[in-house]
Amino acid sequence: MRILLVILALLAVSLPGMLQAGDAYRAVFELTSDNPKQWTAVLNNVENLRKALPGTSVEVVAHGPGLQLLMREHNSEVAARMEDLAKQGVVFAACQNTMKRMNVSPDQLSPFAQTVDSGVAEIVRKQQAGWAYLRSGG
Amino acid sequence: MRILLVILALLAVSLPGMLQAGDAYRAVFELTSDNPKQWTAVLNNVENLRKALPGTSVEVVAHGPGLQLLMREHNSEVAARMEDLAKQGVVFAACQNTMKRMNVSPDQLSPFAQTVDSGVAEIVRKQQAGWAYLRSGG
Amino acid sequence: MRILLVILALLAVSLPGMLQAGDAYRAVFELTSDNPKQWTAVLNNVENLRKALPGTSVEVVAHGPGLQLLMREHNSEVAARMEDLAKQGVVFAACQNTMKRMNVSPDQLSPFAQTVDSGVAEIVRKQQAGWAYLRSGG
Repeated sequence: MRILLVILALLAVSLPGMLQAGDAYRAVFELTSDNPKQWTAVLNNVENLRKALPGTSVEVVAHGPGLQLLMREHNSEVAARMEDLAKQGVVFAACQNTMKRMNVSPDQLSPFAQTVDSGVAEIVRKQQAGWAYLRSGG
Repeated sequence: MRILLVILALLAVSLPGMLQAGDAYRAVFELTSDNPKQWTAVLNNVENLRKALPGTSVEVVAHGPGLQLLMREHNSEVAARMEDLAKQGVVFAACQNTMKRMNVSPDQLSPFAQTVDSGVAEIVRKQQAGWAYLRSGG
Repeated sequence: MRILLVILALLAVSLPGMLQAGDAYRAVFELTSDNPKQWTAVLNNVENLRKALPGTSVEVVAHGPGLQLLMREHNSEVAARMEDLAKQGVVFAACQNTMKRMNVSPDQLSPFAQTVDSGVAEIVRKQQAGWAYLRSGG
């Protein structure tokens, strides 16, 4: 009985807003733009977020024209920066639906890039698992 | 014991929204663009989401310039595709605030279109009932 | 007793972030555009939301090029309208990261403007405290 009351108290405390005690923040960024200015903006946002809220889990989902962010052929100006972030735990996820549609093979992606079945599905899954969502650019 | 059951009942009532065990995913898409390329992008996203996560509930909210997506005068190129999605349960919701401002009457909308009092309010309600949010296009 | 523990476990799993009974709605708007047409659109959205759902808490976070929304030098056409909304409780928050990067001092902001350490971090905090999110413009 006492343990039940403790559990209930913890539940009540953790209710307002889903973030549970001890959890770090979690944020998924959506990128759909092939504009390098947008790429810089989203990377700035990721870095600023992690400075302001250290330990925040971050995943950047690139789909549609935004897939180019993760393609070696297109991303040379920001690849080193992303590789560094990836080493710190930031996930860069390419949409396999977009890859199929654009005939992009996995070896055309940067080595640090991961893939997900569907960019949109990944964003929905993350949000419904309690991640914050940030839509980047046009 | 009785007090515990009351607390549990209150908790259950206060949870409306969160993804409960067994629930399918739910996602609300915001469309504010009158650009047909954005329309195709959002419809692609809806279809890809439902392929990746079958049974996902989807609502597309069109407001501002995006209202044209649901106007017969403007949407002939994507109307059949939307009608098909609507038959599968996808909701297409036009913002009544926008309709008033732009002097659009209900009979100017496609027959499958539904209406909501305010597109923004609808998006807020859906998110706070636990739906994921996807912002489409510029 | 055993059934109670099962219910509690299910509740804990389903927790991530719901609107509580009695709560008003809460929405955070992100503005990153220096385009006055976007400013008018976001202010329209804020007003329409508060008409449709009276009592909704609203915060508008301006960062990146969107910081100009809150700078006296740039916002003369919408300042009075924002001041009025601020008096009604709408929060307008300028990103201090952006201010540093653009060498903007607090006295260059409108008097009603507040500041936050990081616009993106603020948006993540709000969402993970249960606020709905609306991304405005390109």
